[in-house]
Amino acid sequence: MVNEDKNEDKGKKREPKKEAGKAASARGSKRISRTAGLAPGTLVHVGEERAGKIRITFLDFDAQNFQEKEVAAAKECFPLRDTQTISWINIDGIHDTVSIEQIGKCYKIHPLVLEDIVNTEQRPKLEDFGAYSYVVLKMLTFDDVKGRVVSEQVSLILGQNHVISFQETIGDIFDPVRERIRQHKGMIREMGADYLLYTLLDAVVDGYFVILEKMGERLEGLEEEVIQDPEPQLLQRIHGVKSQMGLLRRSVWPLREVIGGLARSESALITPAARPFFRDVYDHTIQVIETMESYRDMVSGLLDVYLSSLSNRTNEIMKVLTGFAAIFIPLTFIVGLYGMNFNTTASPFNMPELNWRYGYPFAWGLMIATVVSMLFFFKKKKWL
Amino acid sequence: MVNEDKNEDKGKKREPKKEAGKAASARGSKRISRTAGLAPGTLVHVGEERAGKIRITFLDFDAQNFQEKEVAAAKECFPLRDTQTISWINIDGIHDTVSIEQIGKCYKIHPLVLEDIVNTEQRPKLEDFGAYSYVVLKMLTFDDVKGRVVSEQVSLILGQNHVISFQETIGDIFDPVRERIRQHKGMIREMGADYLLYTLLDAVVDGYFVILEKMGERLEGLEEEVIQDPEPQLLQRIHGVKSQMGLLRRSVWPLREVIGGLARSESALITPAARPFFRDVYDHTIQVIETMESYRDMVSGLLDVYLSSLSNRTNEIMKVLTGFAAIFIPLTFIVGLYGMNFNTTASPFNMPELNWRYGYPFAWGLMIATVVSMLFFFKKKKWL
Amino acid sequence: MVNEDKNEDKGKKREPKKEAGKAASARGSKRISRTAGLAPGTLVHVGEERAGKIRITFLDFDAQNFQEKEVAAAKECFPLRDTQTISWINIDGIHDTVSIEQIGKCYKIHPLVLEDIVNTEQRPKLEDFGAYSYVVLKMLTFDDVKGRVVSEQVSLILGQNHVISFQETIGDIFDPVRERIRQHKGMIREMGADYLLYTLLDAVVDGYFVILEKMGERLEGLEEEVIQDPEPQLLQRIHGVKSQMGLLRRSVWPLREVIGGLARSESALITPAARPFFRDVYDHTIQVIETMESYRDMVSGLLDVYLSSLSNRTNEIMKVLTGFAAIFIPLTFIVGLYGMNFNTTASPFNMPELNWRYGYPFAWGLMIATVVSMLFFFKKKKWL
Amino acid sequence: MVNEDKNEDKGKKREPKKEAGKAASARGSKRISRTAGLAPGTLVHVGEERAGKIRITFLDFDAQNFQEKEVAAAKECFPLRDTQTISWINIDGIHDTVSIEQIGKCYKIHPLVLEDIVNTEQRPKLEDFGAYSYVVLKMLTFDDVKGRVVSEQVSLILGQNHVISFQETIGDIFDPVRERIRQHKGMIREMGADYLLYTLLDAVVDGYFVILEKMGERLEGLEEEVIQDPEPQLLQRIHGVKSQMGLLRRSVWPLREVIGGLARSESALITPAARPFFRDVYDHTIQVIETMESYRDMVSGLLDVYLSSLSNRTNEIMKVLTGFAAIFIPLTFIVGLYGMNFNTTASPFNMPELNWRYGYPFAWGLMIATVVSMLFFFKKKKWL
Amino acid sequence: MVNEDKNEDKGKKREPKKEAGKAASARGSKRISRTAGLAPGTLVHVGEERAGKIRITFLDFDAQNFQEKEVAAAKECFPLRDTQTISWINIDGIHDTVSIEQIGKCYKIHPLVLEDIVNTEQRPKLEDFGAYSYVVLKMLTFDDVKGRVVSEQVSLILGQNHVISFQETIGDIFDPVRERIRQHKGMIREMGADYLLYTLLDAVVDGYFVILEKMGERLEGLEEEVIQDPEPQLLQRIHGVKSQMGLLRRSVWPLREVIGGLARSESALITPAARPFFRDVYDHTIQVIETMESYRDMVSGLLDVYLSSLSNRTNEIMKVLTGFAAIFIPLTFIVGLYGMNFNTTASPFNMPELNWRYGYPFAWGLMIATVVSMLFFFKKKKWL
Repeated sequence: MVNEDKNEDKGKKREPKKEAGKAASARGSKRISRTAGLAPGTLVHVGEERAGKIRITFLDFDAQNFQEKEVAAAKECFPLRDTQTISWINIDGIHDTVSIEQIGKCYKIHPLVLEDIVNTEQRPKLEDFGAYSYVVLKMLTFDDVKGRVVSEQVSLILGQNHVISFQETIGDIFDPVRERIRQHKGMIREMGADYLLYTLLDAVVDGYFVILEKMGERLEGLEEEVIQDPEPQLLQRIHGVKSQMGLLRRSVWPLREVIGGLARSESALITPAARPFFRDVYDHTIQVIETMESYRDMVSGLLDVYLSSLSNRTNEIMKVLTGFAAIFIPLTFIVGLYGMNFNTTASPFNMPELNWRYGYPFAWGLMIATVVSMLFFFKKKKWL
Repeated sequence: MVNEDKNEDKGKKREPKKEAGKAASARGSKRISRTAGLAPGTLVHVGEERAGKIRITFLDFDAQNFQEKEVAAAKECFPLRDTQTISWINIDGIHDTVSIEQIGKCYKIHPLVLEDIVNTEQRPKLEDFGAYSYVVLKMLTFDDVKGRVVSEQVSLILGQNHVISFQETIGDIFDPVRERIRQHKGMIREMGADYLLYTLLDAVVDGYFVILEKMGERLEGLEEEVIQDPEPQLLQRIHGVKSQMGLLRRSVWPLREVIGGLARSESALITPAARPFFRDVYDHTIQVIETMESYRDMVSGLLDVYLSSLSNRTNEIMKVLTGFAAIFIPLTFIVGLYGMNFNTTASPFNMPELNWRYGYPFAWGLMIATVVSMLFFFKKKKWL
Repeated sequence: MVNEDKNEDKGKKREPKKEAGKAASARGSKRISRTAGLAPGTLVHVGEERAGKIRITFLDFDAQNFQEKEVAAAKECFPLRDTQTISWINIDGIHDTVSIEQIGKCYKIHPLVLEDIVNTEQRPKLEDFGAYSYVVLKMLTFDDVKGRVVSEQVSLILGQNHVISFQETIGDIFDPVRERIRQHKGMIREMGADYLLYTLLDAVVDGYFVILEKMGERLEGLEEEVIQDPEPQLLQRIHGVKSQMGLLRRSVWPLREVIGGLARSESALITPAARPFFRDVYDHTIQVIETMESYRDMVSGLLDVYLSSLSNRTNEIMKVLTGFAAIFIPLTFIVGLYGMNFNTTASPFNMPELNWRYGYPFAWGLMIATVVSMLFFFKKKKWL
Repeated sequence: MVNEDKNEDKGKKREPKKEAGKAASARGSKRISRTAGLAPGTLVHVGEERAGKIRITFLDFDAQNFQEKEVAAAKECFPLRDTQTISWINIDGIHDTVSIEQIGKCYKIHPLVLEDIVNTEQRPKLEDFGAYSYVVLKMLTFDDVKGRVVSEQVSLILGQNHVISFQETIGDIFDPVRERIRQHKGMIREMGADYLLYTLLDAVVDGYFVILEKMGERLEGLEEEVIQDPEPQLLQRIHGVKSQMGLLRRSVWPLREVIGGLARSESALITPAARPFFRDVYDHTIQVIETMESYRDMVSGLLDVYLSSLSNRTNEIMKVLTGFAAIFIPLTFIVGLYGMNFNTTASPFNMPELNWRYGYPFAWGLMIATVVSMLFFFKKKKWL
Repeated sequence: MVNEDKNEDKGKKREPKKEAGKAASARGSKRISRTAGLAPGTLVHVGEERAGKIRITFLDFDAQNFQEKEVAAAKECFPLRDTQTISWINIDGIHDTVSIEQIGKCYKIHPLVLEDIVNTEQRPKLEDFGAYSYVVLKMLTFDDVKGRVVSEQVSLILGQNHVISFQETIGDIFDPVRERIRQHKGMIREMGADYLLYTLLDAVVDGYFVILEKMGERLEGLEEEVIQDPEPQLLQRIHGVKSQMGLLRRSVWPLREVIGGLARSESALITPAARPFFRDVYDHTIQVIETMESYRDMVSGLLDVYLSSLSNRTNEIMKVLTGFAAIFIPLTFIVGLYGMNFNTTASPFNMPELNWRYGYPFAWGLMIATVVSMLFFFKKKKWL
């Protein structure tokens, strides 16, 4: 799902188990709409409502041969099943449950797997069914317009001589892989379906680094702002980055197990020659996770600095204002003092200053001396 | 237990081990009342006091046959034990310990299991007794009237050709399953008792998503309020949601082990064909847990934002008030100054301003200039 | 130990390793007094100083026979060792190291075990010596007078046909078990020594629920107070409950392993028939732990709410006082203004108000208008 | 090392890897001085610079025989290697690397072990080399003069019929063990070298309880002060205790593994008869760890209470002062009011009070009424 | 990479997966630039752009023979492959991918390993390929000029009779090892390639202690400042140290697994004789980690003390200023009082003090008494 569920689809749905957390954190108008009680095996597309047809393309190749085709109907791919060449069938769009079902029947895919493919709320996982393995993961891209991470589900079926990939929308993330196959670059045409699976996984994981880069830039920006201008709304922006990182986190953590599982897999589908490559993607996944975790530390550091800056600023202001008041208080006392109405004529002890020739300048002198000595005292105490 | 224990039942009880945490957090008048020392094997209903008879119904079916009946007495179900068809016996109400005991005897269920069935304070668990497996879990529903989650205990016995389910009240959560059996929808009539168990578990887990949805909405609401109007009582409401989530948490975390145990089970009762289905519910449970955990993060984020908003607000007020005071302080000084009683006639140095033609307007000008320059200064320092 | 160590016993002690944490947290005058360097195998009673003789009783029974007796000397129990009936020897008081040593010799108990029995500072543990298993755990009771939890050490030796139990004081926690044996209630007379061990463990664990109940009540009380009247000393009371919970925690966490170990034990002393019962106590232990953990959450929630309430209150007061000051400040300015001594006769510009007919009412009007507009402004800003 | 490194020793050093954390936390003038690049196998004493000779003593015994001697040169101990009696060689002082090397050669100890013995920066560990096992651990004593924990490294070599112990200084912690051997107390003369190792470990672990006791007393003291007189420097003292506990922690945590390893060891050097004894020390170690962890909880509780007390105090002062100001503000207003110079002769509306007979008493009455009503209001609001 | 990526290199790159966290935390202008989509096996140098040629040197030796040479081209090293002597080939500079590829081909190194060697963004890891093992780790040095830790990647290939080491720049960290080989010091010439690998790892780990020392000094410095002069910018400096420690942490934590893996390795490349040495480096790594962790504790302690000191200071200032204001408030009241204009001639009750002979001294006396009693009160309450 591209995370923009309009939810007009009120038809038969079975497992629209939305990641409600995401829904809520995106603070949209989205709702978890579920019609529990359908029998398992009923295919229901869950995710963003899509119009139009799905696009099915395949590449069929070995070291010598190469064939690429966009097919009109799913059944055109069926003959590929029985050839010895490597076939990569790619389905863009998963809302056409009929085609998905046909492919599923042809390749003998378990109904529950088909259900998972058309339900975009899956958690990354690997399931080994002996004759084929099912991998589901999240492709993340950064939407520069909306300024946030967009998640799309990618399902991959690895069979003996074929890989079937399902995407939600027509994307270009796998184009470099296609190009490499077309141009016979590297060893991709010499290797089997497992190596093809690796290149696809690698393409997805590569996408995570781009997301990390964007986040890193944002954090850098926030870091500067936090120190220079700790405005109250920064807190929300920091929490915003934090929750975007949560999305990445939920996509990458389970992926680690998935790819680790493939690297250690004892399935006959994964040849020993391909294992170092899966270990390689595994290392990349670990790298993503570590960077992510260090970002988390940065975010909590930011929060610390932010809160401290903010309270610092408030303290600073309060201190200056209070100091300001403190300086005027004795002055006000002095002017009040000479505002007293003691009868100077009744006794020579009653405020003789009032009748001095330089009484008023004396009062001013007193006040100036007071201010100066207080400023001096404050300076000495480093309060100003 | 439906979490509303009146506790008038002072009869023989053996293990009314109440989840005291819940009791306390619900801040009700509930008490943990226990009469320890009873011999194990004594059936004692622990939970909400119920009136009236329990309802026993069964469905007996295979691919061809179907029979549904509400029986008057437990013993009418006994013949089902020896048929080859799949039987699902459902008992609504567990306070009739006599009937429960009869069923237990007929199906050779261990006395401790019977005790657990009638005691609604169980933690979700799976116990494998060879001839049958015992699963206990919590069905959660959201009571819109009281605005909180209500928990009901469901016990399931999986035997060779039968599933026996025990609920506290007559509910409709299993109705869609019944409907599917009646109408021979999906493969439920072709599969065994293990598949039936799966559909029941699935129905319960589906209910958790509804709870998550409600919580998500509440959190969204709280999130907006926290930013716009950080009132002191929000803290209590946030803690309220947190403690409701605790209830969900205590129900779901152990369930993960339970269902994971079924998926990996080596019991003869679970056929290989049913395993992918248990894995499917397992995935859903994991999804519930992950969403729950992301909600927890949201809640702690909310608390952060709330506390920061609140202190922000206070700081804002204090700042304005202090600034207000700071502006008036020099003015008060000036008016005090010209309130001094120096004898202007005694000396030309004594407050000549008082006798100026424009002395009063001069004083006003002084004051206005002071205010303006202070406001300017505060503005420049971004204090206002 | 009943946690009230007077420590007058300065005799030969070997391992008076007190749980110093408890000592300190109980803020008593207790000291860790140790005389390290004694040879292992020297029995030294560590714990509260006791006067008087210890009490030794036994019950000897099988399905048909029953005998109960309080014996004068330990050696009267020795013939029981070789009978086929189940014997339960109970020793109340462990300060008589001579009797303990005699029993130990008769039943061939390892000297280190005897040392552990008479030293009340043990951590709950299970040790399997082949011919017998040694279980040590803490019995907790709530002392209503002192308002705190009191801990007593219980040691249990499970042999082939006997259970030997050691308590610090004469208590009534095992009385219901005795009653059940006497009256042949339940299956206790049909089962072996392992089942007897189970019933004793169950009795102790049942006691924990009572403690939980008390704690739950206290927490409820604190919860209300925290919201209504957040007094400074509440913090200490909350920390008091927290440290009482620490005592429970230290007793229950290791017990989980102990009972889990018994449930999974491959010792010949535990028959398969008894295993479900141990699993049952194990479940209860888990329940205690979970409730305890949810109490911990409550306590930290309480601390949050308390600190927030307190700072809220202070802020509230400060706000009101500052607002109060803010309202009077312009008034003081106004009265100061008309206290200036400008010579009204020298010039018509000098404070003509003073000579107005309604000058004084005008000043009052000005002040009232100021107050009203400020109150209005504060109201609008929701500062009051 | 006795934690007092003067570091004048600039000779050949190989691994002076100081625990820099300790160095820094002790805030001394100590430096990590390393001369990396030396070949492994070069013995370099790392630790406090010692003067004078080392002291070598041995005890050689079995059930019948006993011999004790202080030898002048290491080689006098070599004949003991081949006897069947148990020998305990104790070396006090490890700065004489030549003697250490001789002993190492005679007893065929790996050069890396010898390096570890003379380097006092080891972490507690157990290494099994087949023919002998090497145990290194920290002996902690409390220096009452300096008021802090002092750490000394103890290395133990367990061979077939001998134990070799290395200490940094001449200490008396092992004296009770020697006494027990001399006087044939307990079974120490009947048991093998493994039992001797146990008694030595037990003596060291016993020392930890003394440290715990001291810490407990300090914490008790701090607890009282924190409540009665929360002075700012208490924070540093609390952190001081915390960092002293860090030292204990670093000594005890790895020891748990070490002793656990000995208890479970499959080495031929540890006989089955000795295993229960190692389990016993293991239990003590766990007890130390648990007490330590409960102290940590106490410390963080202390910090909570301290910070809360401090802010409470400040709030209290601010509240009183602000309240004080609040009471005087209306009074100042009133006196200002009657200081206004409205021309009472110009109009009967202008401050008629000034000419009242009881004008001044009226003003006082007004002020007293204001103060009383404000005090009453503050009392009612519980602000005072 | 020496952490100073200019990134002008826009040529063919495959995996410039930068540790974005580091980039951001270093707050430089660095960017994650990636050109995903290249085929695996394409060697791309990722890291700081280097000019000039790389330097290749080798040492070939056994106990008798020794040869050292700087070669012009990689192929000059190839004959070493087939000799029985131990060869250590060291490549300084990894930007010359052609030479790296040649070496890789000669020594049959997997293309993915070669990719990892030239990509300086690796996480420390160990990979065992049977015929050789690949170790990658970070060499850390402290740049005194820039005042921060600089990280350089070191790759090590352990073959049967050779070690190939790859560094980013010409460094002197391995010089002591070379010297030891040249001078036949220690047993390095007697041992195999595994021992050589150990000495190289040991040299790198030794470097970490130097970093720790620097950090320790900084923390000591910060500790003093924090107490004496808690300035706001200290927070940033503390966070600076924290993030530098993060770099060390990311280098050392995975290294623990790497070296632990070598110590436990069952590879034929690691002989039993070398194992104790790997265990030795492992111990050092653990020591680094423990010191690091204790530094982390110190940092969080510092933050605590800092925040507390800061708020203490602010409170202190506020307290003094408020106290100051509090003392002047009654004085101002008194002088205001005697500034009232009650008509003393109209009535004897109207401010008779004004006409007293000692009225003015009386007022002063009143004020002095007030100040003294307030100071006394504040002193008693310990507010000053």
